[in-house]
Amino acid sequence: MGKSVDVVIVGAGIAGLVAARDLVRTGHEVLVLEARDRVGGRLLNAELPGGEPIEVGGQWVGPTQHEAMALIDELGLKTHPTHTAGRHIAELGSSRSEYTGRIPRMNPLALLDIAQAQLRLDRIGRQVSRTEPWRADRAEALDSQTFDTWLRRATHTAQGRAFFRVVTEAVFSTGPEDMSALWASFYFGAGGGLDSLIGVKGGAQQDRVVGGTQAIALAVAEQLGDRVVLDNPVTEVDWDDAGVRVRSGGTVVRARRAVIAVPPPLAARIRFTPGLPGDRDQLVQRMPMGRVIKINVVYDEPFWRADGWSGQANSDHRPLGTVFDNTPPGGSPGVLVGFLEGRHADVGSRSDLADRRAQVIEDLAGYFGPRARTPIDYIEKDWAEEEYSRGCYGAFTTPGTLTRFGHALRPAIGPLHWAGTETATRWAGYIDGAAESGHRVAREIGAALAPTALTGDPA
Amino acid sequence: MGKSVDVVIVGAGIAGLVAARDLVRTGHEVLVLEARDRVGGRLLNAELPGGEPIEVGGQWVGPTQHEAMALIDELGLKTHPTHTAGRHIAELGSSRSEYTGRIPRMNPLALLDIAQAQLRLDRIGRQVSRTEPWRADRAEALDSQTFDTWLRRATHTAQGRAFFRVVTEAVFSTGPEDMSALWASFYFGAGGGLDSLIGVKGGAQQDRVVGGTQAIALAVAEQLGDRVVLDNPVTEVDWDDAGVRVRSGGTVVRARRAVIAVPPPLAARIRFTPGLPGDRDQLVQRMPMGRVIKINVVYDEPFWRADGWSGQANSDHRPLGTVFDNTPPGGSPGVLVGFLEGRHADVGSRSDLADRRAQVIEDLAGYFGPRARTPIDYIEKDWAEEEYSRGCYGAFTTPGTLTRFGHALRPAIGPLHWAGTETATRWAGYIDGAAESGHRVAREIGAALAPTALTGDPA
Repeated sequence: MGKSVDVVIVGAGIAGLVAARDLVRTGHEVLVLEARDRVGGRLLNAELPGGEPIEVGGQWVGPTQHEAMALIDELGLKTHPTHTAGRHIAELGSSRSEYTGRIPRMNPLALLDIAQAQLRLDRIGRQVSRTEPWRADRAEALDSQTFDTWLRRATHTAQGRAFFRVVTEAVFSTGPEDMSALWASFYFGAGGGLDSLIGVKGGAQQDRVVGGTQAIALAVAEQLGDRVVLDNPVTEVDWDDAGVRVRSGGTVVRARRAVIAVPPPLAARIRFTPGLPGDRDQLVQRMPMGRVIKINVVYDEPFWRADGWSGQANSDHRPLGTVFDNTPPGGSPGVLVGFLEGRHADVGSRSDLADRRAQVIEDLAGYFGPRARTPIDYIEKDWAEEEYSRGCYGAFTTPGTLTRFGHALRPAIGPLHWAGTETATRWAGYIDGAAESGHRVAREIGAALAPTALTGDPA
Repeated sequence: MGKSVDVVIVGAGIAGLVAARDLVRTGHEVLVLEARDRVGGRLLNAELPGGEPIEVGGQWVGPTQHEAMALIDELGLKTHPTHTAGRHIAELGSSRSEYTGRIPRMNPLALLDIAQAQLRLDRIGRQVSRTEPWRADRAEALDSQTFDTWLRRATHTAQGRAFFRVVTEAVFSTGPEDMSALWASFYFGAGGGLDSLIGVKGGAQQDRVVGGTQAIALAVAEQLGDRVVLDNPVTEVDWDDAGVRVRSGGTVVRARRAVIAVPPPLAARIRFTPGLPGDRDQLVQRMPMGRVIKINVVYDEPFWRADGWSGQANSDHRPLGTVFDNTPPGGSPGVLVGFLEGRHADVGSRSDLADRRAQVIEDLAGYFGPRARTPIDYIEKDWAEEEYSRGCYGAFTTPGTLTRFGHALRPAIGPLHWAGTETATRWAGYIDGAAESGHRVAREIGAALAPTALTGDPA
């Protein structure tokens, strides 16, 4: 290739694509190098038996996700509401509750316990700065403990603890013991609080994108045309104050600036010459990815609706701990989407497909009865096995990391700019955060490459 | 190059070199590819003003480190005792104590507090399996909390807490909040308990190697001759059941087996094709390196000895929290070695050399009086800045990691074998553990490549 551009962008997920589009609009020549044979990163469509698209990656948008919604609107894409009518199912401890609204029926002590812990969590989430969480009042104390330790102190009933474990796995696809309590506080705060993150109506699971969320990435990539080059995994970046030389296989791209728009653990796998400062390197050593196997199970029809169920189910003991109705807007075929998250993904990943499938179907039958045993299709994606994601939904920080190295998450290093949903200040971990980060790096680069403004009176 | 051998070894630290030597002895053709222009990995000699070697990396050996001692003996190298005569200095809280023996003088309540916490820690260390710590009775509970959380529960005095923080930073070069309590328990157990890890006489700091510890690596490398190739950073490993193709720059080495003998976060940066299983990848995303800047400060003579001090000093508030007498066996020049560990290394690394040096000298003057202000040399190494170490002393596991992914630390994956001190079952993190791991992979490979034994009666 041997091409030379203003800005080279590594990764054609939402962050990289949005950055590229913004930069093209401000007159910059860009090239996006994507490792895979497709765009979208953690957004990926598959096909239902009838040919309709269904997401095997990130799929929901919701209120206050202004960056994501603006992008969707601008591209002429439409959303439709997630199906939510009917009774939800929650299994916490030995009891099964069927309920409508937000919170499962359970004994009043457990409800009070959950309400009080949520109040504390949301208060801390509001107090922790979204731009500099490491400067929060109790940042050191929160970052010195796991979120599990925090939850054990904040809750006093078994059902309360079970509730927050299920919530944590559903939101982070990893257990509360894996992450810093400061990261959890930041993340809940960045998404507007617990209800906002776990809710369907009024929350992060409210809407779906017609055509599947990968349509967002495909539409931006279409606008970018041949500025997006697939099958080009970037392995080396040489840099100095004048610019970068980015290597992918035998090809080299020169640019004045580079955007690294891949998840932190994958950014760690690019060889930078000269090597990056210790703070930045230590940071990316300490931001592992969550782990999830996402599974769409397809039926002739959404049979659970006729039985009065919404399709939404959670359990603290079934591997398939979180389930939603994922039926296309037309109402056929019926689709239930479930998630094996964190430790359940570990176990699921070690099983062979037949065993994993049998377990998933059995869990669905446990929630929705024997008709769940006769699916017409089974579509799964194990994101930790994906070489160019190595986990989902996103990265998190381990204890001690934000307070020590959080400051190195966003600032450019010479000509190197850092994008990706993990660098966002609102809705980190979501499509919205990815878009925010793309806009931010485009602004950074626009400012850096602009002709120096005249200062003072020229006379 | 285009060479073909039985076994290719990535990394010429102690683990890789020991594995190579064992394999050569059992008749295998080996090639060791080293990224740097030198062997030794985290062992590295520098020169004192008079030309004598001094270590800027790992430097001590001690009793029960049988693998390290056997290697040293076999190579004809000698050890000499770490200087320890005189009064040690400990600053915990606002009090300075000068003491001989093992434990600083402090108030009896704090002493009792430390003794009780140590008893608990050592008991857990003995209970936690060194080969499968994730199977320990309380493994889940210990792995769900940081070591800081554990210590806060196990100690009840400010001085007790300060003591264990200093100890943690000295042993792990990271704070107790960064690591899993299960990892800390395993690590203390693997080294024979707290006294064994922090002790000089009878402990891990008891002896030094004449000629500096890098002499061990240099001696093994000399035996291996041109089987060790420097300046060859391995970036890609293609593998299948038949063997491996290892790429470094433009060269490719084919082999039946590969040993990856680099720290876990660096193993994560090698591109394996096909990609490694999710469990293994998640593991190496969650084993960051500690961080230390090691500093040898050189004086005309070991002036502190004349003042009755041993040169050993610790502080819970000075950045240079751990200091030892590092004078060569001949007694001249005088050398004090100090460590900026964990968060102190973060701060130190952001300073420029002059400021960092001034701070270090001031700390030494605080311990040993104004004569410390007139050094004749200052020799430092910031290991997190080293592209091919990216931290020291070793990697640790973050909470939740050992119980979820510890099982993936050692087992070979097809033709890929995993060495390095972090994979050891005794003295993990030490030279001894590195040697153990080298012997282990050599045995694994010897067994795998041996002609299949005849089974049954040939008649």
